[in-house]
Amino acid sequence: MLLQMLDYLGVAVFAITGGIVASRKQLDIVALLFFATLTGIGGGTLRDLLLGVPVFWVENEWYLLVCFVVSALVWYFAEWIEKLSKPLRWADAIGIAAYSVMGAAKALTVGDTILVAILMGVSTATFGGILRDTIAREPSSIVKPEIYVGAAFAGAGGFVVLVQLGAPQILAAILAASCALILRGGAILRGWTLPGHRIGTGSDPG
Amino acid sequence: MLLQMLDYLGVAVFAITGGIVASRKQLDIVALLFFATLTGIGGGTLRDLLLGVPVFWVENEWYLLVCFVVSALVWYFAEWIEKLSKPLRWADAIGIAAYSVMGAAKALTVGDTILVAILMGVSTATFGGILRDTIAREPSSIVKPEIYVGAAFAGAGGFVVLVQLGAPQILAAILAASCALILRGGAILRGWTLPGHRIGTGSDPG
Amino acid sequence: MLLQMLDYLGVAVFAITGGIVASRKQLDIVALLFFATLTGIGGGTLRDLLLGVPVFWVENEWYLLVCFVVSALVWYFAEWIEKLSKPLRWADAIGIAAYSVMGAAKALTVGDTILVAILMGVSTATFGGILRDTIAREPSSIVKPEIYVGAAFAGAGGFVVLVQLGAPQILAAILAASCALILRGGAILRGWTLPGHRIGTGSDPG
Repeated sequence: MLLQMLDYLGVAVFAITGGIVASRKQLDIVALLFFATLTGIGGGTLRDLLLGVPVFWVENEWYLLVCFVVSALVWYFAEWIEKLSKPLRWADAIGIAAYSVMGAAKALTVGDTILVAILMGVSTATFGGILRDTIAREPSSIVKPEIYVGAAFAGAGGFVVLVQLGAPQILAAILAASCALILRGGAILRGWTLPGHRIGTGSDPG
Repeated sequence: MLLQMLDYLGVAVFAITGGIVASRKQLDIVALLFFATLTGIGGGTLRDLLLGVPVFWVENEWYLLVCFVVSALVWYFAEWIEKLSKPLRWADAIGIAAYSVMGAAKALTVGDTILVAILMGVSTATFGGILRDTIAREPSSIVKPEIYVGAAFAGAGGFVVLVQLGAPQILAAILAASCALILRGGAILRGWTLPGHRIGTGSDPG
Repeated sequence: MLLQMLDYLGVAVFAITGGIVASRKQLDIVALLFFATLTGIGGGTLRDLLLGVPVFWVENEWYLLVCFVVSALVWYFAEWIEKLSKPLRWADAIGIAAYSVMGAAKALTVGDTILVAILMGVSTATFGGILRDTIAREPSSIVKPEIYVGAAFAGAGGFVVLVQLGAPQILAAILAASCALILRGGAILRGWTLPGHRIGTGSDPG
């Protein structure tokens, strides 16, 4: 039930990020609708294909309706949304928190191992954004120095470990998603990073 | 039967667009063959993965043969093709018209709902081009201001609505594909656009 | 058995290439781990989705462990790796040789035709690199003039033809992979190319 809500939340906020990018690129409403939907359902679609289960939005039409409503809201309220502080990044952060937990949970449900569940959570949480940034030709967040994949990893890993330790699923989900959100929020507000490689050659041709 | 032909047509014209891009980048014949094939079968492959049905070109080898023949023709006649007016865009437009209808029709065939069928048509029609443009590092057409996604939407949506209203499938397919082609053609010839967002912040950091 | 080893080898060397790109971009260890894993398992994941068989790393956790070990090694030894000559390209070349054969072999195993098996080998061998280069915003190797797709084609095509001619699988695999490696190695060392298109219009608007 909570997981179901996390799933709708993840789809909705990723759709918001897609809608914001589309409105910034001044796309028309049909293109905005498509782009927002693509971003909203991208991560979960990859998850379901990899798990070999039916794709969630093909099974349950409500997800598409959520994307449509969100797109309409972004279309009409983009000017207002842009007055918020970094709306794209914050929506993306909430999406990562929701989806990293949800992706890992769904993988555990179909009987996958711990490692697979963690990777599934991380992939699910990041794929929508990768798709959005690739199509819009923006640098993907996963190759920026700020904490990004790390937050998804904390969400997916935290959930899996807590569940393995016997925590109730709902508690594990809340704690893990909060942890992911705090990490990513720190990156947005304070530029938190993990230590990165300091070697970079630059000059090596290949 | 008509749908089958639309499917071959869509694969062939998308393969042409891939071949044209490859020849403009002066790739060798093997790379051109691969790139044209990838573009030709990309959209339908996504459709079949999402629908959970066997991938069409794995089931029926003729599609690959179509891509090979098209690639050979582009290889030998590229100079002649380039004398046409905007050959890449027009082939792409025909592909969108054929694939938006075909994608929606296949989704209806396996029992999906109207919304899902429309999204499937739009995704199928645009994914081959997104793949082509992403790999070739060209700006994807879906983030350009011209009508593009809108044409795919008209093709998929028109077909689904007409079929729901009781029109014979063949008539619905012809009308919807024509409508998509006219919209996209207007965009190519006259720069038709739908109203876009006029807010674009540009300066907002995220 | 040899094919199984080729599969682990392909995953490992593609993971190395992803790790090298990530370390050059000075990503943190979690992002490097994810990026290396994505590159390592990308090609095989596409293959399994297209073939409609369970995704290999979901079935067998050892592949992920290989990616993790490789990522750790790249993280600690990147400085040393960068002293080698073109480490990224050479690891990629070994990956192409291993994966083009392995992809074609797996397609033949599930009963696909020759053409499909060859395309599956080429797609498998190139997709990990396409994913890596797209996310890292580097030009994809398949749109460079050097022999790249051609090497994958030689590996996949050579294997399929030799097996059809009755060669033992192990011999066919070794010969075909060597052939792919030699072709790609020639491209790296001597800039080998196949004849490319010499028409390129440049000025045509679409």
